[in-house]
Amino acid sequence: MNIRFYNARILTMEEDRPVFVGEVWTQEDKISFVGTSEEAVGADAEGGFDREIDCKGNLLMPGFKDAHTHSAMTLMRSLADDLPTQEWLNNQIFPVEAKMTGEDIYTLTKLAILEYLTSGITAIFDMYLTPETIAKACKEAGMRCVQVGCVNNFSQSLELVERMYNELNTEDDPLNSYFMGIHAEYTCSPELLTKFSELVHKYKAPVFTHIAETKSETDGCIERYGMSPVKYLASMGLFDFGGGGYHLVHVNEEDMQILKEKNMYVVTNPGSNLKLASGIAPISDYMKHGIPVALGTDGPASNNCLDFFREMFLVTGLGKIREDDASAIDAMEVLKMATVNGAHAMNLPNCDILASGKQADLIMIDLDQPNMQPINNICKNLVYSGSKQNVKLTMIAGVIRYEDGKFNIGVDPHDLYAEAENIKKRIMSELGRD
Amino acid sequence: MNIRFYNARILTMEEDRPVFVGEVWTQEDKISFVGTSEEAVGADAEGGFDREIDCKGNLLMPGFKDAHTHSAMTLMRSLADDLPTQEWLNNQIFPVEAKMTGEDIYTLTKLAILEYLTSGITAIFDMYLTPETIAKACKEAGMRCVQVGCVNNFSQSLELVERMYNELNTEDDPLNSYFMGIHAEYTCSPELLTKFSELVHKYKAPVFTHIAETKSETDGCIERYGMSPVKYLASMGLFDFGGGGYHLVHVNEEDMQILKEKNMYVVTNPGSNLKLASGIAPISDYMKHGIPVALGTDGPASNNCLDFFREMFLVTGLGKIREDDASAIDAMEVLKMATVNGAHAMNLPNCDILASGKQADLIMIDLDQPNMQPINNICKNLVYSGSKQNVKLTMIAGVIRYEDGKFNIGVDPHDLYAEAENIKKRIMSELGRD
Repeated sequence: MNIRFYNARILTMEEDRPVFVGEVWTQEDKISFVGTSEEAVGADAEGGFDREIDCKGNLLMPGFKDAHTHSAMTLMRSLADDLPTQEWLNNQIFPVEAKMTGEDIYTLTKLAILEYLTSGITAIFDMYLTPETIAKACKEAGMRCVQVGCVNNFSQSLELVERMYNELNTEDDPLNSYFMGIHAEYTCSPELLTKFSELVHKYKAPVFTHIAETKSETDGCIERYGMSPVKYLASMGLFDFGGGGYHLVHVNEEDMQILKEKNMYVVTNPGSNLKLASGIAPISDYMKHGIPVALGTDGPASNNCLDFFREMFLVTGLGKIREDDASAIDAMEVLKMATVNGAHAMNLPNCDILASGKQADLIMIDLDQPNMQPINNICKNLVYSGSKQNVKLTMIAGVIRYEDGKFNIGVDPHDLYAEAENIKKRIMSELGRD
Repeated sequence: MNIRFYNARILTMEEDRPVFVGEVWTQEDKISFVGTSEEAVGADAEGGFDREIDCKGNLLMPGFKDAHTHSAMTLMRSLADDLPTQEWLNNQIFPVEAKMTGEDIYTLTKLAILEYLTSGITAIFDMYLTPETIAKACKEAGMRCVQVGCVNNFSQSLELVERMYNELNTEDDPLNSYFMGIHAEYTCSPELLTKFSELVHKYKAPVFTHIAETKSETDGCIERYGMSPVKYLASMGLFDFGGGGYHLVHVNEEDMQILKEKNMYVVTNPGSNLKLASGIAPISDYMKHGIPVALGTDGPASNNCLDFFREMFLVTGLGKIREDDASAIDAMEVLKMATVNGAHAMNLPNCDILASGKQADLIMIDLDQPNMQPINNICKNLVYSGSKQNVKLTMIAGVIRYEDGKFNIGVDPHDLYAEAENIKKRIMSELGRD
């Protein structure tokens, strides 16, 4: 499909390029033209268009990159909230997770994809139990998915991670890719980490993992190994080829130096950090150190939704509170985290901005809604007053997957809702909780 | 209009009554029946129905009460963000406000009403400059509006407050009502406060005002009068007939005792408190003291939107962070703040719950959306994963004002958008900023 979007406001997310009025054309999976209305008149629409969309002044911008999630945890959304964190994890989440099959995860990932689309999310950085069924779900539904390994003492082996690394990083499947990763320091023995480090060095692979999410995690690591989690994992050679950390709430100055030296990304998850009382990450400090920050929702058991507008507001709002400074973390920085930085962290350099030759991963934001009026400043509006309600269209790799509330992922949402309900009933019954 | 809602899940917000399946009937401005599907079969539908709405399993609940706002500040949404608070207020907000006419405020209030409706807000507690034009806008648009006086040294007189108190608290206009109030301690001289206190005692009126929003406000009051703002205003007799405070972020134990003794309400505004770096209010402490807490968005210059789902998530999320306890401030408590407590704070005892004889101020929440699936727990879903996108219908005083994205407030939203744009251009031109 070749599509012409015209009468659009456009935010390309190129450095220092303000919003302008113009057109975006897509050809198959790529963007073939981005320019002003005047430039569009003279441009060559090779092959013509299959569809022309009058954007009526609404905004086109790159889709959001959800740089940390556990999609299939949709099952546990609102299953157990308002509980102390350890009780939530050990008594509620882990037992349910233990009963989930690969087929369950396939279905529950598709359920999450519906929600990502409503929020303008065009790529996810997903960590969960059965990478093959996740990749299948994303390929079928058209979601761009970067998975990350979840090596730990209990449920995911080095062999699986190595196999997935080789199988998912091929040209055949442009929507799926894979990073090496571990679940976290506290779920991996030193022996396992040593072997994992060998694997990382074999492939010269960057590594992502949960790090320093809670104070007890950081304190526990210092107690166990005399080092912070960042320092300990770095000392094992895990970040010799870069990578990054999810959460990174409880860190010190030395950790910041290590993150900077190793060219790592911070993926912050403010909604989850609030709901689980984990703390407020030092985002302004990361920015001052020149450490790039990307944004993630975390899984829907912790958050409980996959709403990038919530995360965007929170990352700046919590930064302002933490720094006691209403000018901390400007809205444009937040938009950069949500798009460009996320794409770069996830090794999706062709999905970062709207420009000719880039992947056609874009969204249309409805400005014709009261929460966007008057239009004083579109970028501030996106971060401070935007909502999922403003997502009019979500396109991934040139295919419109969501438009005016309707989904196009090859399956009826109601079938997914019904299947999720059945999975829940089955697992609750297996656990004797029905 | 008499309307029958059937096939609904119903959350009445009565104490300890879980969600059930049934029907709600409305007759003119009131609810005439709430009950299970079985109970509905035998009930008498006096006069029949003008419309029957199949809710298809979606949720009916009381509308949200936005217990602190400045509606007409829609004009300043995203006009000036990411600035230090004093620069924002003195150089950006105040000069614009000084140019606003009563007619401007009328239009901008209607713009805000559109946004309230999209968020399921059925009543607002509004403080702004020209109460007469605000009341006119709300009456015409069908919004339930409780205004509060804004006495201060510069712009709102005791005479106006007394007149509005008498004019707006009549039976003729059931949608509008009025509380006595001042802007804040720091904008009122002791002489003015003394006269205001006399007025309050003349009418035995409860009083609402901004209190202890920022640390510098609290510190300044202690410096000026040797007392906290709560204690100082109480010492002037302002709360001798109850009332409450907006924000109440920076308080001490003695303040809590005073709030409790005076039967006052706390209206918390977490979105605004984040964005302006004001701090995190001690909500759990208020709850422990038995002080009722209601919820408000504050004005769209500070927030920048009028989204109750954001506020609901924030009040519990920030409470959890503040207490370092993921079990702090249960979702049901949040829903109570957003509905029942707000109604009671605003002296709207007939708008608190869904029950026969109460005002028909209700909303329908779309559960047929991915962020609500699977339906593990509807109340948790509302607070933790709900969004404006889930608001399918908003009814005030028996009139459906918003349904499936369409407004019914007697004016085309596009006319309001255009008028707001014109007001902005005129004022910017007057300020030499165009």
